Amino acid sequence: MTEELHPQRTEISQYGEFGLIDFLTGKIELKNASSKVGIGDDAAVINYGDCDTLVTTDLLLEGIHFDLSYVPLKHLGYKAAVVNISDICAMNGRPRQLVVSIGLSKRFSVEDVAEIYQGLQAACDYYGVDLVGGDTSSSLTGLVLSLTCLGEVEKGKAVLRSGAKQHDLICVSGNLGAAYMGLQLLEREKRVFQGEKDFNPDFEGKEYLLERQLRPEARKDIVEKLAEMGIVPTAMMDVSDGLSSDILHICKQSRCGCRIYEDKLPIDYQTAALCEEMNMNLTTAALNGGEDYELLFTVPLSEHERIDEWKDVRIIGYICPPEEGAKLVSRDGNEFDIIAQGWKHLQD
Amino acid sequence: MTEELHPQRTEISQYGEFGLIDFLTGKIELKNASSKVGIGDDAAVINYGDCDTLVTTDLLLEGIHFDLSYVPLKHLGYKAAVVNISDICAMNGRPRQLVVSIGLSKRFSVEDVAEIYQGLQAACDYYGVDLVGGDTSSSLTGLVLSLTCLGEVEKGKAVLRSGAKQHDLICVSGNLGAAYMGLQLLEREKRVFQGEKDFNPDFEGKEYLLERQLRPEARKDIVEKLAEMGIVPTAMMDVSDGLSSDILHICKQSRCGCRIYEDKLPIDYQTAALCEEMNMNLTTAALNGGEDYELLFTVPLSEHERIDEWKDVRIIGYICPPEEGAKLVSRDGNEFDIIAQGWKHLQD
Repeated sequence: MTEELHPQRTEISQYGEFGLIDFLTGKIELKNASSKVGIGDDAAVINYGDCDTLVTTDLLLEGIHFDLSYVPLKHLGYKAAVVNISDICAMNGRPRQLVVSIGLSKRFSVEDVAEIYQGLQAACDYYGVDLVGGDTSSSLTGLVLSLTCLGEVEKGKAVLRSGAKQHDLICVSGNLGAAYMGLQLLEREKRVFQGEKDFNPDFEGKEYLLERQLRPEARKDIVEKLAEMGIVPTAMMDVSDGLSSDILHICKQSRCGCRIYEDKLPIDYQTAALCEEMNMNLTTAALNGGEDYELLFTVPLSEHERIDEWKDVRIIGYICPPEEGAKLVSRDGNEFDIIAQGWKHLQD
Repeated sequence: MTEELHPQRTEISQYGEFGLIDFLTGKIELKNASSKVGIGDDAAVINYGDCDTLVTTDLLLEGIHFDLSYVPLKHLGYKAAVVNISDICAMNGRPRQLVVSIGLSKRFSVEDVAEIYQGLQAACDYYGVDLVGGDTSSSLTGLVLSLTCLGEVEKGKAVLRSGAKQHDLICVSGNLGAAYMGLQLLEREKRVFQGEKDFNPDFEGKEYLLERQLRPEARKDIVEKLAEMGIVPTAMMDVSDGLSSDILHICKQSRCGCRIYEDKLPIDYQTAALCEEMNMNLTTAALNGGEDYELLFTVPLSEHERIDEWKDVRIIGYICPPEEGAKLVSRDGNEFDIIAQGWKHLQD
């Protein structure tokens, strides 16, 4: 469980700036017709024709967003890309290009950076995204990753957070809380076995939770299926901070209230089992865990039947007038205010 | 000369994530018709019509790219924006949108972040750019700034580094080496007076050097003037790493050689005076200093007369066949290979 960077070690200084960039990006081929010029100039050149351009960015800092004592570098690269790709999907868009900046301290070797790039490239390949630019720098301290993803959507068809209407159904894809419980599991094993060399933690039966935490996926498939079904959500976003915070964004920006039903929250059995084992509240994990990267969206009430038949999506509540507030309806029928969690890391 | 953050101090934790973002970005108004949706959703929405989209990114890390003991936060914000805007200009483009990610350690207050944003906003106002998104996070160590700038250029009209042709003239705007000497000056004063409280360093007569280091400008005016004159450079980039490294990028990507004349290098008298005073080589400062953010470009020989009459631009050499190499012709007529400097910070 202790940090293990790549066993073979080539110092970055042996390559120098331009050598390193060539090594990492020399073989990258552009796949999308919209990628006109990629890495190697002052800027990348992109053209989406008649479509709108979407742009989103995320900053990932060592010790805040990831802990290299249990996150493999390749997974980190993959996840960093997915987090951004998910934001493009959440706008009803198609992810197309990625630019990546990396800050590296001296404990990272050329092999380590190559692993991060392998993860980035794997995500790019899977989601049909081109790596078109970036910046590489040394860092005095930890690893810094800053990614910007560009995508396209038909002109005027971006789905914002502000379009939810009264009576709309609130829907969520997949399930909630699993990534958070994966993190709890990793943190627990780290605490218990800290310093114990050659310890091999037993994650049997909990692989799904680890996968959700270490190798999340963006729900591009949901966006594609919505298009295929001809359903345009009235509002949409991805669940990154946790359902509570995220539904409040939709309520605030759409000037509405909501009711979310506790018993409708989609939860995987591994999530429930670990909550039980760790004596944690399951609903709290599902509401506030975050990092699910599922899509949270609203659709007109008239779509009830079609959504209800869709296995990958669950209707969890509805939109109401703003004066009725944003509330969770518990299993016993009581109503509780939904509270934003926001950023945990700046509150200590 | 010791680090002085803002005297009034409101802890970021008092605001929380969403409060801080509202405080920093609540009053931002979008000015460009191409900015459809700005801050507040999963992604920004942009549309340039028939134009190509340009995208560039830069990562700035405390202790590597800036030293807060002499860089005011407002200047840092301004410079961070300019560095990116300059890359869009260097593609023959018009800068339009900026997304900004900031990582903050606990020593920064709300007032400090507000100063960074004031600098960013000042640059956005001056260059006609909209701040349309970003990410804000805590950082375990220093300040992290990651910016991505988007711009537009007429379809197919981006000027790359790869288009220089034999006999083309090599031109550079403004002057070289001043930002580097500004940095030397700041570093010298910091060393001499470290710890001496209430010391007020005397920068009289050297203000220009400080300005070039602390508050550089992007040469948007040069791009506009080129368009007005109907001159399309065959290759262009901005001088960020230093003329030596940068002209070698053009030579490599255009598969050509070059001759640069030492006596043609444009140098301000303050740069020359401080080099003399500090017993440094002036040509080295001009060639390798970097951070000039001037435009380096090549034009067909037929433009000689028009460029020669242009006060803001100097012809410093010409493009030759690749087998003749990339060389500096010294004042006494000797030829020296031009050497790439690359990144200084990863080589130690």
